[in-house]
Amino acid sequence: MAFDIMENQRTEISSLGEFGLIDHLTKNNETRNVSTVLSVGDDAAVIDHFGRQTVITTDLLVEGIHFDLMYTPLKHLGYKSVVVNISDIYAMNATPTQIVVSIAISSRFSVEALNEFYEGIYAACEKYGIDLVGGDTTSSNKGFVISITAMGEVVPNNYVKRSGAQKNDLVCVSGELGGAFLGLTILEREKKIFEQTGAQPDLEGQAYIVGRLLKPEARKDIIEFFAEQEILPTSMMDISDGLSSEMLHICKQSNVGCLLYEDKLPVNEEAKQFAYKLEFDPTACALSGGEDYELLFTISQPDYEKIGQNSAITIIGYITEPGEGKNIITRGGSKYELVAQGWNHIK
Amino acid sequence: MAFDIMENQRTEISSLGEFGLIDHLTKNNETRNVSTVLSVGDDAAVIDHFGRQTVITTDLLVEGIHFDLMYTPLKHLGYKSVVVNISDIYAMNATPTQIVVSIAISSRFSVEALNEFYEGIYAACEKYGIDLVGGDTTSSNKGFVISITAMGEVVPNNYVKRSGAQKNDLVCVSGELGGAFLGLTILEREKKIFEQTGAQPDLEGQAYIVGRLLKPEARKDIIEFFAEQEILPTSMMDISDGLSSEMLHICKQSNVGCLLYEDKLPVNEEAKQFAYKLEFDPTACALSGGEDYELLFTISQPDYEKIGQNSAITIIGYITEPGEGKNIITRGGSKYELVAQGWNHIK
Repeated sequence: MAFDIMENQRTEISSLGEFGLIDHLTKNNETRNVSTVLSVGDDAAVIDHFGRQTVITTDLLVEGIHFDLMYTPLKHLGYKSVVVNISDIYAMNATPTQIVVSIAISSRFSVEALNEFYEGIYAACEKYGIDLVGGDTTSSNKGFVISITAMGEVVPNNYVKRSGAQKNDLVCVSGELGGAFLGLTILEREKKIFEQTGAQPDLEGQAYIVGRLLKPEARKDIIEFFAEQEILPTSMMDISDGLSSEMLHICKQSNVGCLLYEDKLPVNEEAKQFAYKLEFDPTACALSGGEDYELLFTISQPDYEKIGQNSAITIIGYITEPGEGKNIITRGGSKYELVAQGWNHIK
Repeated sequence: MAFDIMENQRTEISSLGEFGLIDHLTKNNETRNVSTVLSVGDDAAVIDHFGRQTVITTDLLVEGIHFDLMYTPLKHLGYKSVVVNISDIYAMNATPTQIVVSIAISSRFSVEALNEFYEGIYAACEKYGIDLVGGDTTSSNKGFVISITAMGEVVPNNYVKRSGAQKNDLVCVSGELGGAFLGLTILEREKKIFEQTGAQPDLEGQAYIVGRLLKPEARKDIIEFFAEQEILPTSMMDISDGLSSEMLHICKQSNVGCLLYEDKLPVNEEAKQFAYKLEFDPTACALSGGEDYELLFTISQPDYEKIGQNSAITIIGYITEPGEGKNIITRGGSKYELVAQGWNHIK
């Protein structure tokens, strides 16, 4: 946890110049995919997906809106910026292969600080087997802006949209929900205490939820499991805004309803205990807390047994007729309408 | 020319919400390419270049660094943001097919202002036959940030890198140089006068240079001419930083020298007259002024006659052995070393 950017050495970015900076940041860049025909160093990169379809997605992250450098180490920020992006590629049932990374930075950042950020970028590239093939590096008057576009490949017409869910399909999620929101809550709380009293943060026993926020992973394993088991979900998306919001997107785009069960929602035990301590409802955290980067998907009933083999997947409900609405059955047996409330509502 | 953003009606962006805003901005979005298998509205877009290679490039534009909204109409800004990007695709000898557009905006911008910006984006998409297939829309605390990633397609291994120039190849440029720099100069001058005295800008007779800065075009026609004539340049890049800087990139990446001729540099007559008025050297404007978005390329000598058929192409010199250096012969017959000086040096 870095409450400020530690720097033993400070090299001004201006000392390298734009092209020097790009050379410096890409000098150890490795290529892992045969599809990367031409990488960094020209007007554009060249990709050959050899008969596969190309999938493309992009995200823009702005300091003060999407991340707070007071409690986000730059290496984690680099790693997470990549993960957030390729999570969208996996959500199409595709395999990420290349990224381009653009940043705008003020003179507040040193070369050493950028090195840390790019260490995170390269660590994610290595972990997920993707190539950094281009980008843009520019100055900003204030703040740090990160734009990443990720490309991937998919067997022709094997991609999974949000709009294919059908009545009686099972609704599934990977992993556990609500942790990232609780991690954000504790970091924001400790930041306030630090600002008011100068006290160092107390994150004792909160490694899980803090890690969920600062170093999320994308569900490569789930896509690989689908391929091995020959499962083609009927719809899928990744959970960035919260389960409720994403479920409503799938229902809207598929023109169906859904019924979820509160007691099926996968919430980590540590997260649950922390939620109780804050007097938050763990179910609300799972439904409306965002940034978990788990996959939400629907499968047709014949795939039920295959799905059961994977302990990282939980069936949380099923798809209904559009007229039946989008609902959740609580532990007490009451039925409530799903609403996309966003994070602020929980607090 | 808009010295401020004129708004008869003001709709707050917050009144639409994030998803409402995206729907609003993409509701008339057309698809022009069969390669666009899936467009806006899912986690990612899907592209099928049907056996062609995919080319990808990205640019990040920051208010106050790359553009000044005091004299840049938002529609022009949207158009130029696309052109700047696809110019890099053409510079690979490829055809642009899709873009993704991300923006970060503060609450200073209304829905009407964004409409103008997107009108420019869509106008460029129509003109160049490309599809807007995705993006990200987020808030910023201050300023306007635009990130565009463009994709294109090229016949396998027909792309042109910066590194293929060989001894005796002819050095060519499209169009005319230095105009955008002079346009920027007059706009910056009139902005200062406006700030100091409130006087309205005097751009009488300066439509050409102002247009070169605010509404540049990418050289689609040159790439089409290459295809018709079966010309494959040995190296190519687009001129964004200035002819000298780009020529030095080609020489470095091709490991060659070059000899250019001052009297061959194509400079528009109106631009020349304006340069004299400011006591600028038109040659310096052509060599070091950026943002012309013309193509700089080399061809082998057997293509000399074919090139002669296109009046938009000028031969400005030739490639030499690396030991001979990178030089320019002036009108007076003196030889000077080419240096990448950037815009500030001219003033």
